[in-house]
Amino acid sequence: MTSVQYDVLGIGNAIVDVIAQTEEDFLVKHGMQKGAMTLIDEARAAKIYEAMGPTIESSGGSAANTIVGVASFGARAAFVGKVKDDTLGHVFGHDIRASGVAFETKPASDGPATACCYVLVTPDGERTMNTYLGAAQNLRPADIDPDQIGRAAITYLEGYLWDPKDAKDAFVKAAKIAHEAGRRVALTLSDAFCVDRYRDEFLDLMRKGTVDIVFANEGELKSLYQTADFHAALGQLRNDAKFAAVTRSEQGCVVVTAASVTPVPAFPIDKLVDTTGAGDLFAAGFLVGLARQADHTTCGKFGALAAAEVIQHIGARPQQSLKDLAAANGLRV
Amino acid sequence: MTSVQYDVLGIGNAIVDVIAQTEEDFLVKHGMQKGAMTLIDEARAAKIYEAMGPTIESSGGSAANTIVGVASFGARAAFVGKVKDDTLGHVFGHDIRASGVAFETKPASDGPATACCYVLVTPDGERTMNTYLGAAQNLRPADIDPDQIGRAAITYLEGYLWDPKDAKDAFVKAAKIAHEAGRRVALTLSDAFCVDRYRDEFLDLMRKGTVDIVFANEGELKSLYQTADFHAALGQLRNDAKFAAVTRSEQGCVVVTAASVTPVPAFPIDKLVDTTGAGDLFAAGFLVGLARQADHTTCGKFGALAAAEVIQHIGARPQQSLKDLAAANGLRV
Repeated sequence: MTSVQYDVLGIGNAIVDVIAQTEEDFLVKHGMQKGAMTLIDEARAAKIYEAMGPTIESSGGSAANTIVGVASFGARAAFVGKVKDDTLGHVFGHDIRASGVAFETKPASDGPATACCYVLVTPDGERTMNTYLGAAQNLRPADIDPDQIGRAAITYLEGYLWDPKDAKDAFVKAAKIAHEAGRRVALTLSDAFCVDRYRDEFLDLMRKGTVDIVFANEGELKSLYQTADFHAALGQLRNDAKFAAVTRSEQGCVVVTAASVTPVPAFPIDKLVDTTGAGDLFAAGFLVGLARQADHTTCGKFGALAAAEVIQHIGARPQQSLKDLAAANGLRV
Repeated sequence: MTSVQYDVLGIGNAIVDVIAQTEEDFLVKHGMQKGAMTLIDEARAAKIYEAMGPTIESSGGSAANTIVGVASFGARAAFVGKVKDDTLGHVFGHDIRASGVAFETKPASDGPATACCYVLVTPDGERTMNTYLGAAQNLRPADIDPDQIGRAAITYLEGYLWDPKDAKDAFVKAAKIAHEAGRRVALTLSDAFCVDRYRDEFLDLMRKGTVDIVFANEGELKSLYQTADFHAALGQLRNDAKFAAVTRSEQGCVVVTAASVTPVPAFPIDKLVDTTGAGDLFAAGFLVGLARQADHTTCGKFGALAAAEVIQHIGARPQQSLKDLAAANGLRV
């Protein structure tokens, strides 16, 4: 068995966020599903951008945000995802590497532009996302380096990878390699609508043991089991997944296995500004906890701490060292 | 006399800010003058960007920030400045127009890329700026539309325009047109080192009446008169400028004419995050006050309010409606 070089390796859509604050009526006017991630084509992207207020650009992508969070805790992290060799592709590459993450995926030299997510943040702090996948659609099994996957203690995959057609194959390939190397595989369900698109496949991944650890929020869990009853859904999840962390916004999270249910409270915040990245950063903290062999409660606390940092400013990546923040709150990484 | 269409029209370098948080030692290591704006070439820009931590991109440019602030107060605003027809040029154009500002300057179709300012924010909230002027150097007198200038009650010019060689001529042309149309001309001294580069010319602009209103901070004022004695410098300014507002960070500002000195306190803040745009937004509020015929104290209060908003988050443009913020603080625009 090769030695572990990375605590967590993430695979996901490489995206730059284009963020604007907006009023609720903008969402209604443009037919957007509040709080969801909707896939858009280039024409719709142009239309939304033109209508949006002034923006801030910040590297994003769900798994990429998580991996940056992992690195911010001081853990060893790598990311695999596809950008184009264009201005926003350079921005994405710069930011993730500058965050201390190994990022070696070759950018596409032609084809569609680097992926953009048009994020609308309403006054309640909720974010509504419109994603143009662009170059992220070109992530292929050939981009998965078996040797690199084998050296990651946990390979973390986003459900959103089911959207670009070849990325799914890359996902499955990575999971197989990880398990063959005796490593663990984690999956985030990503979004309630994403779950709706790929419900059976996600359930299959859990039931067949393709994934060992599942991240979901309440909406995704309910979507997975098509029920409004959280506790019923949680019960089903405990049958299907070996190990899962379910986030519940200000109600904190619940860490479950077949044998146990461990609730962990949310971390207190001063002011909710922008929920973008809340789930991603929860996963970051939780994964760092797992990498450190922490118990379920401690893993949940790391997740809650990281999520609390990211929702108190605009943008989906931490603006301060999570390692320092953890230390300041008596959590030793 | 044509009717007024804009309360304030600004002319300045059109720049996209690339912002990273950093430690003090980064500035030392890279030979940066803390708190200053330094001009850099493309090679140095590439080197700094590579060394910087993860960034956020946000439209900037001193006068452009001011004009966006003016629009955020609900006043009528226009901007003149040069970008290239590239990704960041589109971002700049989108953001300023989406802020409600008229922006009609034709982008350059060739030549250097859209200007970038690499902003390093240290833990004390101070910002150190490295500007690659790029396409902003192509602003020329031909970009000044006499009819548009004639329809602006105040034309606001940044001292930074003295850096790109043709922009200076555009500046002088605009000031002349404004005065011929019976309008007022305002100048910000921009930066203590900029003042050092163009001291005699800036003094000339004031003494000859090319500008009617001067904005400066304490450092710029001291640089202008090459003295460490603030009060001596202020006395000289009252001889040279008809009307000036001098900002003093947490000590507020002083509004001066030959006949009067009016101190106005700073607006209280919760937490200083990033001083980028503090002077720009002070000018925005102050200019809105002037456009509304407010007295000196009220103009200063508008300025202080806008500056306080912008220093409490990353980025040099307001993240909430300054009109609403003014109303919430009993200031009627």
